[in-house]
Amino acid sequence: MKHTVQEIADMVAGELHGDGSHVLETVASLRTAGPRDLTYAEEKFVEDAKRSRAGCVLVAEGDFPGQNVIRVRHPKLAFARAAHLLLMEASEPPSIHSTAVIAGDARIGQGVSIGPGVVIEPGATVGKGSAVEAGTYIGRNSTIGENCKIHPRVVIYANVSIGNRAIVHSGAVVGADGFGFVRDGASYVKFPQAGRVVIEDDVEIGANTCIDRGSLETTLIRRGVKLDNLVQVAHNVEIGEDTVIASQAGISGSCTIGAHSMIGGQVGMGEQAHLARGTMIGGQGGVLAGKRVKGGELLFGTPVRPLKEFLAQQAHLSRLPRLAEELRKLRAEWNEFRRAKPLK
Amino acid sequence: MKHTVQEIADMVAGELHGDGSHVLETVASLRTAGPRDLTYAEEKFVEDAKRSRAGCVLVAEGDFPGQNVIRVRHPKLAFARAAHLLLMEASEPPSIHSTAVIAGDARIGQGVSIGPGVVIEPGATVGKGSAVEAGTYIGRNSTIGENCKIHPRVVIYANVSIGNRAIVHSGAVVGADGFGFVRDGASYVKFPQAGRVVIEDDVEIGANTCIDRGSLETTLIRRGVKLDNLVQVAHNVEIGEDTVIASQAGISGSCTIGAHSMIGGQVGMGEQAHLARGTMIGGQGGVLAGKRVKGGELLFGTPVRPLKEFLAQQAHLSRLPRLAEELRKLRAEWNEFRRAKPLK
Amino acid sequence: MKHTVQEIADMVAGELHGDGSHVLETVASLRTAGPRDLTYAEEKFVEDAKRSRAGCVLVAEGDFPGQNVIRVRHPKLAFARAAHLLLMEASEPPSIHSTAVIAGDARIGQGVSIGPGVVIEPGATVGKGSAVEAGTYIGRNSTIGENCKIHPRVVIYANVSIGNRAIVHSGAVVGADGFGFVRDGASYVKFPQAGRVVIEDDVEIGANTCIDRGSLETTLIRRGVKLDNLVQVAHNVEIGEDTVIASQAGISGSCTIGAHSMIGGQVGMGEQAHLARGTMIGGQGGVLAGKRVKGGELLFGTPVRPLKEFLAQQAHLSRLPRLAEELRKLRAEWNEFRRAKPLK
Repeated sequence: MKHTVQEIADMVAGELHGDGSHVLETVASLRTAGPRDLTYAEEKFVEDAKRSRAGCVLVAEGDFPGQNVIRVRHPKLAFARAAHLLLMEASEPPSIHSTAVIAGDARIGQGVSIGPGVVIEPGATVGKGSAVEAGTYIGRNSTIGENCKIHPRVVIYANVSIGNRAIVHSGAVVGADGFGFVRDGASYVKFPQAGRVVIEDDVEIGANTCIDRGSLETTLIRRGVKLDNLVQVAHNVEIGEDTVIASQAGISGSCTIGAHSMIGGQVGMGEQAHLARGTMIGGQGGVLAGKRVKGGELLFGTPVRPLKEFLAQQAHLSRLPRLAEELRKLRAEWNEFRRAKPLK
Repeated sequence: MKHTVQEIADMVAGELHGDGSHVLETVASLRTAGPRDLTYAEEKFVEDAKRSRAGCVLVAEGDFPGQNVIRVRHPKLAFARAAHLLLMEASEPPSIHSTAVIAGDARIGQGVSIGPGVVIEPGATVGKGSAVEAGTYIGRNSTIGENCKIHPRVVIYANVSIGNRAIVHSGAVVGADGFGFVRDGASYVKFPQAGRVVIEDDVEIGANTCIDRGSLETTLIRRGVKLDNLVQVAHNVEIGEDTVIASQAGISGSCTIGAHSMIGGQVGMGEQAHLARGTMIGGQGGVLAGKRVKGGELLFGTPVRPLKEFLAQQAHLSRLPRLAEELRKLRAEWNEFRRAKPLK
Repeated sequence: MKHTVQEIADMVAGELHGDGSHVLETVASLRTAGPRDLTYAEEKFVEDAKRSRAGCVLVAEGDFPGQNVIRVRHPKLAFARAAHLLLMEASEPPSIHSTAVIAGDARIGQGVSIGPGVVIEPGATVGKGSAVEAGTYIGRNSTIGENCKIHPRVVIYANVSIGNRAIVHSGAVVGADGFGFVRDGASYVKFPQAGRVVIEDDVEIGANTCIDRGSLETTLIRRGVKLDNLVQVAHNVEIGEDTVIASQAGISGSCTIGAHSMIGGQVGMGEQAHLARGTMIGGQGGVLAGKRVKGGELLFGTPVRPLKEFLAQQAHLSRLPRLAEELRKLRAEWNEFRRAKPLK
């Protein structure tokens, strides 16, 4: 949706320099932006900003004669906010496609859009202003909050609760059975996976990510959590507020992750591991089952350890050949000495 | 489905203490169970069990005056069995949704349920009592056995055979092409992926898990195998009976895994690696291509080695800084000595 | 489709020995091939080829009296090419299923097949001869080239461009939002994910693989790239021509991978890492964020290093216990010596 430079400046509470009536249509990177684009420049790119053809640049400081700029404290954050406005599509009137299969007792809020081939089972709820796109499945008694965007071909099993403003990307599966079995001699009997999944407000779930239901209790994803693509969240896991988990990380059953944590790509956590608030784990790190990890530090490696320790170990490792050689030499000198001067 | 305590006791062949006529409706954890719930207590939680408000507790031993308990040898296993009964939904009459697209020559057994938007291609078979849920695709000449549960949005390619009592979770893809190419100068020509997938009875396949078809032969998943979410099984792999594979593990082409093995999350196996019967590999372990691993031991690390060896190596690693310091000191003493007493 | 041995010999430009009029129907492995099957034998299997019951064997050399053989320089490559002919299905007349939901202004080329439940949004294009199978979703203004095969239940978001002869397997998601957020105090604001995905010709994308759209620029997959199942390609990544990436590898945002590279299964690349042309990384290898890796070498481990170095380090690691013991002994001898002969 089009906005003037003045409107953007007001929205981000910035200081406008230039032509406030200039009209912006969309956003672009500093390198590619043209006259109808809003962009932003981090401090190190201020010189590039001066050469930019952008319709408007968000900057922290500097002098830009002849250009439209908005000065704000955090240009990237202001850009992210303004981009939501510019990228908002001219809202089509909400509609429910004729090929959707919606149970008679499902509750569909005002202004909900439902795409072709969507299936909504009995007892399910979709809150007002939400969009459920083509081919998505919403199971019995599951609830989608308000102003959510559920992309095509998502599967929500029964008895899942999703809060407001959730974004769920295609192929995500929420509420499948946890992986729990009891041995019966050499074979396995399925342990009941009868718990729920509760996802609070403002959560984003990446493409093809899986969040299993609790076995007897609840898998809980708290407000503001962001999960990348292909992430595995097993049964009974609890993830604290505003935690971000990068692609292909795997969180085993009954783990807890404290709020404001950052989990890197391909990190693996064994069962019943616990991360304190504010834990950061670098990509491919491994947390052993049952481990309790203190927060506030950047951890690396398998098993995870503080970055400083990890780097020290890497350094020692790379010095190993030299260490072995030094020992060999010392031994040789000693042997020569002892040959020359036997102890007795 | 409701059952009396007596019925549950009979079903698990346990010793009933208390009111056999008390009616149970579902299952819950020891911590949350109320008067209509069945639960169980492992031995270490027997004291908690005494305080439980559950309608009935499965226990191994102990005295519970005033409570309904059933004594069995393996409470968790008995609970898993009884849960199947209590959680069985009052079976709706099987139905075939009008939006399903079913080839005229597909064979659909008695009591089969087929959800909205399901596609069943020519020559395919669905055995009696199976449920194929919304949006699932079953390719040409593929066979689903009896009493299977295929969750929404599963894709079964052509010429796949799935046995009886299979559970396949949403987003799973069975029978896609294996990853095989032949170099032609700098580019690649696709090697034919014309083999099959055969999945025997009692297999469970997790959400978004992929099992590729054989290139010229067959990818074979034997009876009772359980695969977690997001697992990759490449072409021509064979997985032995009652083996369990945790989330995000990846099994490369032509690997074999013996029966009763346990593969941890995010384990990776290179091509043509072979695991003997009863192999256990801890999370994130790596098996090199072509490796033959003996069974019956717990293996860890990349490349995998016995846990004892792995732990010893970890211990040596953490002592490395001290080792380097000890060598430095010994060298210093020796140098001082040699300065004081030259050899000649 | 049936072909005579002579037709196959002509197609692969090979030297025919035997009965050129013999009819072949399909392909099989050397071990299982029967009279109607084409197979091939690598040099080490020439003796097996002599015992084969195959209708025809592609070989590099050797004498096979009484058998139909075709001599070619690269039997496996010739087999791959010939297999395309034999496995080509008698083309059913292209059809557009009545349950597909196709926008009025979508452009559908000649000879396109569209399966049940497919959704094609406004402004999208499908080039001639392509097949879009059941339940696939193609977003606004996205383009599929000519002679592509899009398997069931694929999701292509809006503004994605896919070239000619692409093969996209089930569950793949192309164009979902990249994982980008800006901190706003303790919470996160979504950074715009408004860029595109461009996929050039002859690319194959595996089942449940995810390719995210650029944030402000473009995610670019060049000609001939092959991606296995469950691979993650993040926003703004560029992958060079004829590069192959094995299952479950994860490529973080803004990485570049040079042409003709080979990336093993479960490899992880941190953000903004760069691989030169012809880089090879073994399974589970880890590339640190921001790293620049030279090509032409086989790299292993986390962080990655040349195979030779990796193996040397592994060897040193396994000698660590002995090293520690040797140091202990030398120290003991020295201490004994010093007790016997104090320095002063």
